[in-house]
Amino acid sequence: MYHIKNFADRLLDAVDQKSSSVVVGLDPDVRKLPEFLIERSQARHGHGLKSLAAAVLDFNTQIMEAIHDIVIAVKPQIAFYEALGIPGLRTLQKTIRVAKSHGLLVIQDAKRGDIGSTAEAYATAHIGFINQGKKRSIFGADAMTVNPLLGTDSIEPFLKRTETQGKGIFVLVKTSNPSSSEIQNLEVITDSERHYLYEVIARLVCRWGKNSIGKRGYSSVGAVVGATFPQEARLIRDLMPQTIFLVPGYGAQGATAQDIVHCFNSDGKGAIVNSSRDIIYAFQKDERMANQSNPDFALAARDSALKMRSEINNALRKAVS
Amino acid sequence: MYHIKNFADRLLDAVDQKSSSVVVGLDPDVRKLPEFLIERSQARHGHGLKSLAAAVLDFNTQIMEAIHDIVIAVKPQIAFYEALGIPGLRTLQKTIRVAKSHGLLVIQDAKRGDIGSTAEAYATAHIGFINQGKKRSIFGADAMTVNPLLGTDSIEPFLKRTETQGKGIFVLVKTSNPSSSEIQNLEVITDSERHYLYEVIARLVCRWGKNSIGKRGYSSVGAVVGATFPQEARLIRDLMPQTIFLVPGYGAQGATAQDIVHCFNSDGKGAIVNSSRDIIYAFQKDERMANQSNPDFALAARDSALKMRSEINNALRKAVS
Repeated sequence: MYHIKNFADRLLDAVDQKSSSVVVGLDPDVRKLPEFLIERSQARHGHGLKSLAAAVLDFNTQIMEAIHDIVIAVKPQIAFYEALGIPGLRTLQKTIRVAKSHGLLVIQDAKRGDIGSTAEAYATAHIGFINQGKKRSIFGADAMTVNPLLGTDSIEPFLKRTETQGKGIFVLVKTSNPSSSEIQNLEVITDSERHYLYEVIARLVCRWGKNSIGKRGYSSVGAVVGATFPQEARLIRDLMPQTIFLVPGYGAQGATAQDIVHCFNSDGKGAIVNSSRDIIYAFQKDERMANQSNPDFALAARDSALKMRSEINNALRKAVS
Repeated sequence: MYHIKNFADRLLDAVDQKSSSVVVGLDPDVRKLPEFLIERSQARHGHGLKSLAAAVLDFNTQIMEAIHDIVIAVKPQIAFYEALGIPGLRTLQKTIRVAKSHGLLVIQDAKRGDIGSTAEAYATAHIGFINQGKKRSIFGADAMTVNPLLGTDSIEPFLKRTETQGKGIFVLVKTSNPSSSEIQNLEVITDSERHYLYEVIARLVCRWGKNSIGKRGYSSVGAVVGATFPQEARLIRDLMPQTIFLVPGYGAQGATAQDIVHCFNSDGKGAIVNSSRDIIYAFQKDERMANQSNPDFALAARDSALKMRSEINNALRKAVS
């Protein structure tokens, strides 16, 4: 029988193999892509969505070729592909195939959350299969982000995939954006005690993940915990020692390596850190490429990812020792 | 200058013109479609996603032809189209075009919620335009559902479209699913008072909607309030008199016309009610069509929608008088 490996184990093995906790967010905003890529694509495909989507695929492909050995996963933000319509969503599918050909894990950043029958359809689309004579995946990601607001029955269709199909989810617990505290930091009464809402959600996430804990002691049901709120991150870390944190907010959103140390367990394990804009658009700030019409954006991305990897590894080394 | 009409006004005008508060959810689960439609499509397109997506388009088109004069809007649940991949998403786009050709409003049920830059991309995709020489819409819906968990900055890109571009959103306040209370009914302390989380969200939604109130006194920032929790609905209704409720849960999810009366203001205005499965799959329970190989599913859908319209209108008439 074919053995399906637990997602958390796959992820942690990749972290060890690459000495890296870095995830690169593929959030291709066409206004920020190198102009020469767009122009080249327009020369071939004309003006329109197809042309933009082809430029994005070219951009993603070159970036992944440059960084695949130093990062563990890519995290495409589906909104940026939806905004380019059908050609954009095709580019997302192709991007995922390229990522897999490089051995990169793929975390679909979709933040879906809906009633049971709908959640089942989302799980099928992003991390599942449809059965039409033979099994076929639609997007074929390894994991996806989900929103917990609708509660347990909205999460169950995803749990099935974490428990038996080697897939993963990351549930929003404390997001990285400025307004994140408005709802997530509300004080809630449960069992006559006061807690922050994100603590209550953290406890739910632990419960949801208890049947998908792998050989390495972590669950395939992870948590999104923003690097921009280090104090909250420390509190949440203590609540959920067996949960892998997917940590957004590094770089462009303002968090540093010092900030993200609190997202890891005391042994330096248990978190992966995403940066999107600071890596994929690194060419814009790269002095070597100032005023160049064909900036080597993939090289700039690689250098930025290397820098991020060592910043995090150094901060963790200090914290653990 | 071309005048863009406020979404809430457009919606309430449609309610008056059609004497109807009925929204039909187009949630096409291919396992529930009439078999003859799938077979006919397979004979033409072979076995695969394209064939299923074509059957769904046929199904949706016939249903909309049959119901467009008695319902005000359709609400496609995007998950069911995503689950059919690129062909499915093409079918969604075509479904929206057919809906508009019949004068139906389109509420994209997407429940998106993400950080500002991503929310901007989602708003562009679903209710906005991209500017490529000329303005083009991607999905071109009139309104969409959104998830409030990330707070104000995650909603702002949508508000812009409600205030100046004639679009609408419906923010999840109290959902219709069984686990809805797990998080949404937590007791929260704000200003030294205890409230349910859904009340806090309701107040935020009122604030978000204050700049998009139309001539008829309602905001284009609406709320999703499940019919399955009538007690909560009554409480929420009092908190937000100028908010239009999009009420799911009628029919298959268990709510009756009596239950949904509390979602309306005392003058019988201010809510629209969705039913998906009970209308689009009505042929399965229609005695006239038992054992038929070509059931007239569109007629069954029309009869079910007519029944729902009069049930609601009768219940409202009693409640108002």
